[in-house]
Amino acid sequence: MKKVLIPIANGFEEIEAVSLIDVLRRAGISVVVAGVNESSVKGANEITIQTDILISEVSVTEFDMVVLPGGWGGTDILASDEKVQTILKEMNSQKKPIGAICAAPYALDVAGVLKDNFTCYPSAEEKISKTGYSFDKMVVRDGNIITSRGPGTSICFGLQIVKDLVGDETYNALKSGLLADYCR
Amino acid sequence: MKKVLIPIANGFEEIEAVSLIDVLRRAGISVVVAGVNESSVKGANEITIQTDILISEVSVTEFDMVVLPGGWGGTDILASDEKVQTILKEMNSQKKPIGAICAAPYALDVAGVLKDNFTCYPSAEEKISKTGYSFDKMVVRDGNIITSRGPGTSICFGLQIVKDLVGDETYNALKSGLLADYCR
Repeated sequence: MKKVLIPIANGFEEIEAVSLIDVLRRAGISVVVAGVNESSVKGANEITIQTDILISEVSVTEFDMVVLPGGWGGTDILASDEKVQTILKEMNSQKKPIGAICAAPYALDVAGVLKDNFTCYPSAEEKISKTGYSFDKMVVRDGNIITSRGPGTSICFGLQIVKDLVGDETYNALKSGLLADYCR
Repeated sequence: MKKVLIPIANGFEEIEAVSLIDVLRRAGISVVVAGVNESSVKGANEITIQTDILISEVSVTEFDMVVLPGGWGGTDILASDEKVQTILKEMNSQKKPIGAICAAPYALDVAGVLKDNFTCYPSAEEKISKTGYSFDKMVVRDGNIITSRGPGTSICFGLQIVKDLVGDETYNALKSGLLADYCR
């Protein structure tokens, strides 16, 4: 069973985080939600979710992938938290897949793991040092780095991760089951 | 400011509940999430969210609308909980708008407030007494009752509620800001 780490911090975007957790768990992936600083984390729209562990308890070798939800409040914390940044660098040095959506590709850029071709929430690219920003794709992959745009693309982003980690059959079944035929 | 009640119970579908809360709050609507039986409610995919109040504390006259997220576990509780059923009947007798997505139109049917034309998660219509099930629309309105299909249509459902309660300008700005151009 694949195991994915989703770190969340106060100010995270709730649709993005919850869509990723939900879609990946539906695919049978073991998703561990790790709170940065707190075990109960409040999103940008005042929704508080309970995390599974604290980021300080994370052992990076256990995980096959790490994915960051967006929201600027949460992203700024993910970009400055030492443990999160170390996890990103270690996963990248092991060529493990790393994902980020919305503002969160900025946290990958700060860690030095973002690659040239990426997408993000419109205007977040202005804070990012890489120049290959795409505005016309829901999901962009460059090597082990996969990025997406915002709340409206988060189910599609989760599905693409499912396709990569689990396979086409589960991807197709879930896309149909989620009624997300607009994901391309 | 419009005020919307979202009751949630254990087994609720997380993408649906969180998308509705998130989209409505972004529109400046006051959203109150009411836990049925518990103040911390665990969804179908093991995501626990903190509610704002208990359903027993709800005073129906305060609210302009009630919307139910789906997930069969949560829906069965919403369909059998006396307070939730009373709220649905009272809101309906006052001709206030009532929404439900996925399996939750079943809870409206049990309350006797669902109208002939509706949509829901595919196959949930088999448990519903009304015959006007639509399978080709993301959102269906019949009088004061508005229904939608599942996780992949929940942002679009939230946006339609925003259009109804707040207006076209906020709807258009949010649809663009959420990157949900596929909502029709």
